[in-house]
Amino acid sequence: MFKLYYYPNNASLAPHFLLHHVGAEYDLLLVDKKSNSQKSAEYLKLNPAGRIPTLVYNEQAIFESPAICIHICELHPEQGLIPVIGDSARPLFFQWLAFLNNTLQAELMVRYYPHRHTNDESTIPNVVAAQDERIAEALSIINDQLEHNDYLLGDTLSACDYFLFMLAEWSLPIQRSPLTFKHLASYLNRLSDHPTVKAVCDIEGIDLTPFK
Amino acid sequence: MFKLYYYPNNASLAPHFLLHHVGAEYDLLLVDKKSNSQKSAEYLKLNPAGRIPTLVYNEQAIFESPAICIHICELHPEQGLIPVIGDSARPLFFQWLAFLNNTLQAELMVRYYPHRHTNDESTIPNVVAAQDERIAEALSIINDQLEHNDYLLGDTLSACDYFLFMLAEWSLPIQRSPLTFKHLASYLNRLSDHPTVKAVCDIEGIDLTPFK
Ligand SMILES: N[C@@H](CCC(=O)N[C@@H](CS)C(=O)NCC(=O)O)C(=O)O
Ligand SMILES: N[C@@H](CCC(=O)N[C@@H](CS)C(=O)NCC(=O)O)C(=O)O
Repeated sequence: MFKLYYYPNNASLAPHFLLHHVGAEYDLLLVDKKSNSQKSAEYLKLNPAGRIPTLVYNEQAIFESPAICIHICELHPEQGLIPVIGDSARPLFFQWLAFLNNTLQAELMVRYYPHRHTNDESTIPNVVAAQDERIAEALSIINDQLEHNDYLLGDTLSACDYFLFMLAEWSLPIQRSPLTFKHLASYLNRLSDHPTVKAVCDIEGIDLTPFK
Repeated sequence: MFKLYYYPNNASLAPHFLLHHVGAEYDLLLVDKKSNSQKSAEYLKLNPAGRIPTLVYNEQAIFESPAICIHICELHPEQGLIPVIGDSARPLFFQWLAFLNNTLQAELMVRYYPHRHTNDESTIPNVVAAQDERIAEALSIINDQLEHNDYLLGDTLSACDYFLFMLAEWSLPIQRSPLTFKHLASYLNRLSDHPTVKAVCDIEGIDLTPFK
């Protein structure tokens, strides 16, 4: 049994997609971000970075959404959500997951928590404006990758696609929406029809109509 | 034969440590950052993000330093630089590698390229000041992890430690140096004596005396 510490439409969303996709039994435990529960002493014991998500499985707590995704995938090799060791697509899996996580996700975090990245509130709009451009650059690289590929790794859906879907959803309000990128938009439209995406977004109360 | 597109003391350093550690045959190809060669049409074909490093192996180009590290480790399972599938340390490997890469490395990048994260030059000092605090927070989490562990994953050296050593070296000039954190400082001191760290830093012209 998995326990996923989550908050709707947070970085727990990609792990949630995967738990659903593999048909795992899991409990969702809400971390009440509104009362800053991710910084409570109890939660920090599981996740010293004080962020969402954390996964508990076999009494082992793991944080970092990409690490949680890899763990779920490797526990369910038959699902093909990660290419096996020796498959030439495997390094590409780690490449795109890292790019999504350390670039698109990291830039989005600066965009949405700009006050953490400047010590003068009056300069927040300057940070936000710069971030809008950085996010557009990252989306553009992904759009190019999707020009000749149905999924990030080629022909086959992988955990990277669920991760990208999560980040794309977060990017909808950004100045240049992911939906303004041609290949990315049609890819997101397709993914938004995937049964796992539909079921999990329903559970988390995420509106999929923008993708239609 | 591996080809590593590198620049001294850049994100290519962790992959370089690993290539040396596993005893691989490799060629180093300098990307001339001073003339912005990482954005040349030729390089962008290998690495559309236009950053350093890129690894070429078996005619396959891979970018993103954590992905390159994982690839090298998985090609050399006998070296034990990544716990094998099924080992309970494996999810912790991905957890710490992700944390280092999406938090410490990402915060350092904002710190060192602040002009990319604000559209008004006069606000750069505000960004730098905030980043110094973010970096200290990340180092503090790592310091806590090293209080009761010789290496990030416990008793055994892994690729995560080489990755951390690279980032700690970058952090030396930051307001709160990694060497001001007790457990981290003694860990770095130990690592700076490792034959691979010594050999690769010698090749890249990196001074290890601050760690002594
Ligand atoms: N690198 C982490 C980042 C997680 C993260 O930033 N989570 C956000 C929610 S999406 C959070 O916990 N924010 C609250 C906070 O930082 O205090 C991951 O991907 O798991
Ligand atoms: N996430 C990438 C980041 C690499 C990165 O930022 N490399 C820097 C050098 S340390 C670079 O290429 N900078 C030049 C540029 O961004 O134009 C990785 O870890 O490989």
